[in-house]
Order: sequence, then C-alpha cells, then structure tokens
Amino acid sequence: MRQNYKLTISYDGTRYHGWESKKDVDTIEGKLEYVLQRMTGAEVKLNGAGRTDAGVHARGMVANGWLDTERTPDEIKAYANHYLPDDICVLKVEPAPERFHARYQARGKIYQYRCYIGEEKPIFDRPYTWVLPEWVTKGKLRPDLEAMREAASALIGTHDFKSFCGNSKIKKSTVRTIYEIRIQEQDDYLIMTFCGNGFLQNMVRILTGTLLEVGYGRIERDAIEEILATQDRQAAGPTAPPHGLTLVQVQYEPATIFNISDGRC
Amino acid sequence: MRQNYKLTISYDGTRYHGWESKKDVDTIEGKLEYVLQRMTGAEVKLNGAGRTDAGVHARGMVANGWLDTERTPDEIKAYANHYLPDDICVLKVEPAPERFHARYQARGKIYQYRCYIGEEKPIFDRPYTWVLPEWVTKGKLRPDLEAMREAASALIGTHDFKSFCGNSKIKKSTVRTIYEIRIQEQDDYLIMTFCGNGFLQNMVRILTGTLLEVGYGRIERDAIEEILATQDRQAAGPTAPPHGLTLVQVQYEPATIFNISDGRC
Repeated sequence: MRQNYKLTISYDGTRYHGWESKKDVDTIEGKLEYVLQRMTGAEVKLNGAGRTDAGVHARGMVANGWLDTERTPDEIKAYANHYLPDDICVLKVEPAPERFHARYQARGKIYQYRCYIGEEKPIFDRPYTWVLPEWVTKGKLRPDLEAMREAASALIGTHDFKSFCGNSKIKKSTVRTIYEIRIQEQDDYLIMTFCGNGFLQNMVRILTGTLLEVGYGRIERDAIEEILATQDRQAAGPTAPPHGLTLVQVQYEPATIFNISDGRC
Repeated sequence: MRQNYKLTISYDGTRYHGWESKKDVDTIEGKLEYVLQRMTGAEVKLNGAGRTDAGVHARGMVANGWLDTERTPDEIKAYANHYLPDDICVLKVEPAPERFHARYQARGKIYQYRCYIGEEKPIFDRPYTWVLPEWVTKGKLRPDLEAMREAASALIGTHDFKSFCGNSKIKKSTVRTIYEIRIQEQDDYLIMTFCGNGFLQNMVRILTGTLLEVGYGRIERDAIEEILATQDRQAAGPTAPPHGLTLVQVQYEPATIFNISDGRC
C-alpha cells in the first residue's frame, strides 16, 4: 500500500557530503533512498526537513517520503537499519498524513554547536567537537560568557540574517526568527544551542563563529545590531567548521510551545 | 638533566596495534617514544603500566621513562601533545623517584567495558561500545543483571584466573586479585567496571564475554567456581571485542585504599 511516512533519523555526518542526494558522492539522503528503493523495488524520493552541510551531524533529522510496501512501520525501520551503514540510524518510522511535508511544515529546529575549551586534547569526541584553535582563542582559554550572552540576546527575534548567510547569491527571503540561544560551559566544553523557525545556509556556523569572536574579544558585544543592519556577510565572524554542529530536533508543533528544553540537548 | 618521569596518557586505540612498541606497525608507546626522542635527541624507552590489546582505549594509562631535557614537565607535555596525533594525549608529566617503574609498582587497575543494549544503533560512540550482536543476546534485549552480579561476586578475591587468560602458553603465575566488579545499566548501555591488582592477557575481555553469557542465560550464575577450577580457557565464555574496553586508571597506592569509586568511571 502506498503511503506517506515520516522518518526520524540520526547520523554521524563525518564521511558524507551533506544530507542532500547528489550524484556520485555519498550523502545521507542518498543512502536512505537507496535502501528504501531496495526494499520497495520502486524509486523513492525523500524530502528532508533541511539540508545539513557536509560533515554536520544529526540526532533528530526528519524526512518524509511515499513508500509502496506491505511492511509495518517497525518492519520498515528494521529493514532500513539492517542495510544502512553504521553511521546512519532510523530512529522512528510513522505513517504521516497525505499532505505532510518534512520541509514545508517544519515550524522550528534546534541545532547545537560543541567547542572544546580545555587544556588537553579531547580524545573521545574529536569528530563532534571543534577544538578551538589559537586563531580563535589567542591563547585565552575561557571565553567571556556574559559578553556572548549579551550579543546573543540581540540576535533573538525576527531579523534579516543576510549577514549570517553563507550563500551570497541567495534570492529568497533571508528573514528568520530565532527563539532562543543558550550558551553553556560544561567542564571543558562550550555548548551553544540555537532554536529558531529555520536557518539559512551556514547560518548556525556563522552565528557560532561570530559569538566566539565576541567571547574572545575581537567583536564588541553590542555590535550585533550593526552587523545585522549591514546585510553583508563580511561584517559577521568566520564560519565555524561543520563537525562541531548537530541538528538536534525538528519541530512540527506551533512555535509558541517550542523551546530548547524540548530538545534532548 | 636526566630524570625519571611519570606520564599519564589518554588514547583512542582504534587505529593502533596496541600499546607496546613494535617494529613496522603503529602503537601508542611507539608514537610516544618517537616524539620524546625527537624532543631529547636521544633514544627513549618507556615502561607502560600494562599492555593494552590492539583496539583497546585508555583514559589513564601510566608509563615511565628517563628523559634528558632542560624542559619543565609542563613544557614536555606541551611538546608531546603538539607532535602527537589527535588520538593520543599526554594528560600529565611528573618527575618521578629514581626507582619508579610504571609496571612493577602498579598496585591496581580499573578497566571499563561498554556494551550497547538498546534497540537503535548507537551512532555517536560506535568506536567505544560493543553493540551486542544476535549471537550474544539471542534476541533478548536486556540481560539478567542479578544473575551477572551473582556470577561476578564469585570472581572477587584472589584466584587462579588461567581459565580467563588468552595466552594458553603462559608460564608465569596466573593468580590475580579482583577487588570489585560493578555492573550497571545506564539508559541503553551496559557498563562493566573491573578493579583488580592486575589482569592477564585478554582477561577483562574474557570476563566480560563470560558475564554476558550468564546475563543472557547460556552459562549458569553459579558456574564460575567450576570455570575457575578447570583452569581451562575453553570453560569460560568468548572474548569480547577490544573496542568496548577502556583502561580507566592505574593505581600506585596500597590496594586497601583503592576501589572503583577512585576512578573516573
């Protein structure tokens, strides 16, 4: 029976060229479509809630797709996990309403960026953590969290985030709403969590790079409004590398009841 | 100035042929000796507290070695970490008494073995966790912890552990003392922690494999005394794979004040 399904997916993005299917390279969507095609014997086209960059991870990516199969959702999940590589896992398969579209209906997303700010090298989570290099920290181990939080508060709300967009030729609207940014120090880690209705290409990584510049004193804490106003990518900080970033959750409920605490951050 | 140093080291053993220096293959000791030789310009021979198998990790391996250098301990550490690969980190460098020998003077060790017993695949700590396969679990997700703990209690104390030794041709004594075995379920993980005065080759991995056989019902919980008595490797369970195992700590204080809670388990 042909039916629309909602899939929730976790993956280690290290060895993939991002989420989106591309010819001749390994992508997460590509791997999933391949396995589901093998299962159904027919072409499968998924719609991901977003396109994570090459090297970015996910604990709760959502996609939908129509599958023609007699298998139950649990059987689809078991089949997919059996044939998927070890770095991709289908967490959940649910029948979805006919009109459910993982991208168009997403109301919000939670992303988390992990930095290592300790003295030693982090041995056991290198693939998921940006060990801040000298050019970021300038030898100063701990960032100024208060300055970072003050800067972050100027990002909350609905703004044109063109200065924080990695695609300079973007034609569509660059207006987005950020609901919350949480900045925490946990032992030797600096963890930044972003919750918004959607994010532009590289946006979370540029937000991270910019907030770090504030934390280490090279951008003033009150400069954010100006950076937003210029609508110029050059005004913001550098793009943090992809491997520190994880898509934690995609939310389909109204934004009013959505915040970071909902995600397993 | 030539001086004996105690080094505490953390490493991800995934891509190494074990701790001990060997010709033509990458080992952790080999990498360390190479870097310290580069620093001092003279040959360096380390003594590790033990020899972890290929693929086994460590959070607190200890080694000692004589170094002829004008550098301070912190400078030695910084130099080593700068030149060591990302999966080996020197946590501490301390001047040690002339007679300090990391192996001969070790009073105890703590090892930890991590198994994954959840339904999904663990994406983010695959290199450090044994995802229990069907031939271990026989489709039963959760092991019988009470049975495992009862079996573990029969292992506590001083015994001849020949049945739990991976080297059948061993000539030296196979008598060891286990102080404590802790078996915990944490979410979807089964974590076994072993604390003893020393462990034979593969011993922790065979203990783990045997306790899992008890947990999944193929070895009786009261069979341990008999297995010990046979002094036959065939009587014990299979050898669990190396990548789930981590050497957590090496202890140099008297055994009486040493227990698992001392280690950062």
